[in-house]
Amino acid sequence: MMKGTLFVVSAPSGAGKTSLVNALRARVSGFTVSVSHTTRACRPGETHGQDYYFVERAVFDEMAARDEFLEYAQVFDNCYGTARSSVEDALSSGSDVLLEIDWQGARQVKRLIPECQSVFILPPSRRALAERLRGRGQDGEEVIARRMRDAVSEMSHYAEYDYLMVNDDFETALNELCGIVIARRLLIGRQSAQLQALIEELLA
Amino acid sequence: MMKGTLFVVSAPSGAGKTSLVNALRARVSGFTVSVSHTTRACRPGETHGQDYYFVERAVFDEMAARDEFLEYAQVFDNCYGTARSSVEDALSSGSDVLLEIDWQGARQVKRLIPECQSVFILPPSRRALAERLRGRGQDGEEVIARRMRDAVSEMSHYAEYDYLMVNDDFETALNELCGIVIARRLLIGRQSAQLQALIEELLA
Repeated sequence: MMKGTLFVVSAPSGAGKTSLVNALRARVSGFTVSVSHTTRACRPGETHGQDYYFVERAVFDEMAARDEFLEYAQVFDNCYGTARSSVEDALSSGSDVLLEIDWQGARQVKRLIPECQSVFILPPSRRALAERLRGRGQDGEEVIARRMRDAVSEMSHYAEYDYLMVNDDFETALNELCGIVIARRLLIGRQSAQLQALIEELLA
Repeated sequence: MMKGTLFVVSAPSGAGKTSLVNALRARVSGFTVSVSHTTRACRPGETHGQDYYFVERAVFDEMAARDEFLEYAQVFDNCYGTARSSVEDALSSGSDVLLEIDWQGARQVKRLIPECQSVFILPPSRRALAERLRGRGQDGEEVIARRMRDAVSEMSHYAEYDYLMVNDDFETALNELCGIVIARRLLIGRQSAQLQALIEELLA
């Protein structure tokens, strides 16, 4: 069984990453969803083991100390992490895994799984980004300026990724993201294992 | 200016390669068409420099001797070759080039341009291949058996390629071929050169 591929996707907020990744998952099958661990409280409607693994801070810290996370980060008071074992099990079973994480997470993942394929998504212009960060117009200028600084900081790491794309026209961007995944699956090593029966029949 | 990518596509006759490549060219722009040299006579309706460069055998042999072909082959009494300079000029100008050639040509190209990306297309089954090789039912069994042997011989080289795909459903196969090309164009080196102005604006 050939190993699956780990795809890592990063983007500043406002670049449309989540919509693109959801559309990718709807169009291209064969991904195992990686369920993250978090220390934040379970909200109504969320299910442990499905939306997240909800764990106590002490448990999270222990896992981190034992190097059991592929990547983890603290966002305000809450910690979020991707367990190494779940990703590695999925990859070993031949499934692809896709992680939506920021540049710090991507860097941690690249160190532990160097063969992962990482994609950075840019917005089409600073103006488009500003508009999306402005949201529904209910936030103050300071909040928006802070979001723009965060976005620029995230984007400054684009060169650490394997692939770079722009989300201008959604369909075009979706085709590009799908193309990256599809091309990877067609590499000779993976395909000749996958197509062994057909190849034997054709060459008989 | 980043160099373009040379794509090499091979398949046995009957796998639908030409239809796929034509549909790829219609869907994905940015390819320079490489015009081959040939020693065969110009047919009515063909234009020198557009369909082929029609040259005398002596000229062809001299070019081959001077190592001016990226690949060449003799098919029955006629020679066909791809001039190295035209492909290299197109690549240097940032264009992608796509060559439809057999495994022997692909092997020659890979030796001279190792960074080329090669794709092998398989038919979905031996039965489908046999039906396509049978054509319009006007050829004798011997001719068909010979075509099948040629196809098997071509297919036996699948493992020398970078990518392997199956042309079962045409749209799926077309998406896959486009995916290989698109993914290559999104690689960070090429994209960060291509998107320099946008990146500067976003990070300003």
